[in-house]
Amino acid sequence: MNEVKLRVPATIANIVCGFDVLGFAVSAPYDEITLKLSEKPGIRIHHTDNFELPEDPALNVAGVSLQALLNEVSSTIGFDVGIHKNIKPGSGLGSSAASAMGAVAAANMVLGNPFTKSQLLYFAMQGEKVAGGVAHLDNVAPCLLGGVSIIQSLQPPDAVSIPVPELHVSIIHPQIEVKTSDSRKIIRKEVPLKSAITQWSNVASLVAGFCTGNYTLIGKSLHDVIFEPSRSILIPGFEEVKARCLAAGALGGGIAGSGPSMFMFSREKETAERVVREMTTVYQSLGVDYKTYVTTLKQTPLI
Amino acid sequence: MNEVKLRVPATIANIVCGFDVLGFAVSAPYDEITLKLSEKPGIRIHHTDNFELPEDPALNVAGVSLQALLNEVSSTIGFDVGIHKNIKPGSGLGSSAASAMGAVAAANMVLGNPFTKSQLLYFAMQGEKVAGGVAHLDNVAPCLLGGVSIIQSLQPPDAVSIPVPELHVSIIHPQIEVKTSDSRKIIRKEVPLKSAITQWSNVASLVAGFCTGNYTLIGKSLHDVIFEPSRSILIPGFEEVKARCLAAGALGGGIAGSGPSMFMFSREKETAERVVREMTTVYQSLGVDYKTYVTTLKQTPLI
Repeated sequence: MNEVKLRVPATIANIVCGFDVLGFAVSAPYDEITLKLSEKPGIRIHHTDNFELPEDPALNVAGVSLQALLNEVSSTIGFDVGIHKNIKPGSGLGSSAASAMGAVAAANMVLGNPFTKSQLLYFAMQGEKVAGGVAHLDNVAPCLLGGVSIIQSLQPPDAVSIPVPELHVSIIHPQIEVKTSDSRKIIRKEVPLKSAITQWSNVASLVAGFCTGNYTLIGKSLHDVIFEPSRSILIPGFEEVKARCLAAGALGGGIAGSGPSMFMFSREKETAERVVREMTTVYQSLGVDYKTYVTTLKQTPLI
Repeated sequence: MNEVKLRVPATIANIVCGFDVLGFAVSAPYDEITLKLSEKPGIRIHHTDNFELPEDPALNVAGVSLQALLNEVSSTIGFDVGIHKNIKPGSGLGSSAASAMGAVAAANMVLGNPFTKSQLLYFAMQGEKVAGGVAHLDNVAPCLLGGVSIIQSLQPPDAVSIPVPELHVSIIHPQIEVKTSDSRKIIRKEVPLKSAITQWSNVASLVAGFCTGNYTLIGKSLHDVIFEPSRSILIPGFEEVKARCLAAGALGGGIAGSGPSMFMFSREKETAERVVREMTTVYQSLGVDYKTYVTTLKQTPLI
């Protein structure tokens, strides 16, 4: 195989109570990445989208990730990469993770799959660092593994994918900017023990809900007592959106990654559609532009 | 049914990384509680063990729990309670929880099961308060529900039991005293965010390991970066016991509740027996008296 084309999913980190530890992939939106193995050394990137991302491999998330991979390959080869992004950078939907992981996964395929999961995560993390300033796995891991991922270690990179029942996902992306780095700044370096205990109770229950397909338990556990109270201030209409979505039958949800997108889980597609209508109602009244998705939790791995 | 006799299991709170949130029941040791419904109002308690616990119902854990239950019963009835404890008070093996939950569960049975799970947990918590000064559920919940429990809320009391694969448990109870209240004193009121994140990663992975029967994942997740480093100081030989047990094939383990008992999970009975021999070797060399158990994680509920 000399050329690979991949649909690379958007991902949502944290899943409300699992800050830096949980993440999941969705069926839409997704980026399209085409990668061709070349005898000409170096990395050449061409974007066909309109997001005006740098095509210089040293400044491009996919480029930096591929370079980390190339550093581990002895022969002098190169890659020609075509990227068509649908996941808007800065949306909180794992746009940089899709570029990083998609490019790395495609490169691994054209090379005959020489790398381990941990190595692939490591390469993609290098791209994430360029994008967000912080190496994290809670987008790249679910992007690669599908479903819901638990991050177990950053050094060495390690994550596990767990069984999940069918879940419908409503997403609204208000067209405002919340930088991950800004959103991280308002996080305290110490947390009250009492809140930490509540958080790990919710994480434990959420994981048990996923693994046993218990929708009630999933819904009961989707609470974040540590980060959401401060982070949600950056997202207009957050409380109203959340209240309306829950009233419309959503199981629960919250900020996607560090925002500004919000997501909600629902058991039925019809509920997810009703939920997204509630989301839009709020943003229409606020006069803020938005983009919405009604999709599903993507169960399958990227490669 | 006028009289009920129950075998009430020992329980181990925290399960290393799930402080105040996780707990499990074991098949041994267990207390034996006999409870008889009486037309004579009041609670009469008789202990047939040698632990010199107060028989005055207002001072006895089972008595206080039963009084909380009686307060919700309109008719004037009473209970005659016989308790034979095998779970030594102060062992870290849920001795007070067994008295509290056992008495409450037996009373519920003789009354025709009028109370909900949440109410039963609430009554037993009142006894736990008398014993430990703090109302907690991480022993009474697994005592009632069997298996591994996740505590979801104290007010109102709520807990869920999750699926668990067959697990063998090695326990050593060094005959020294570590008061729960002392062990709680050395806990800081704030935890570093970084440690909290590691902890909820481990909790998430441990629960996923239990629910999916993944022994490797269970073993990988049994780490406590917050409490064990300070609490283990109160337990002589802790580090050596742990290292030897892991080398002998244990999946992992740590302090039982607030100690001084230690426990280790193993996949096979033979491993659990080898592990307990390692435990005793250390305590023999330290010249500290001990009691050991090789048992299993108890899967079945109390009633």
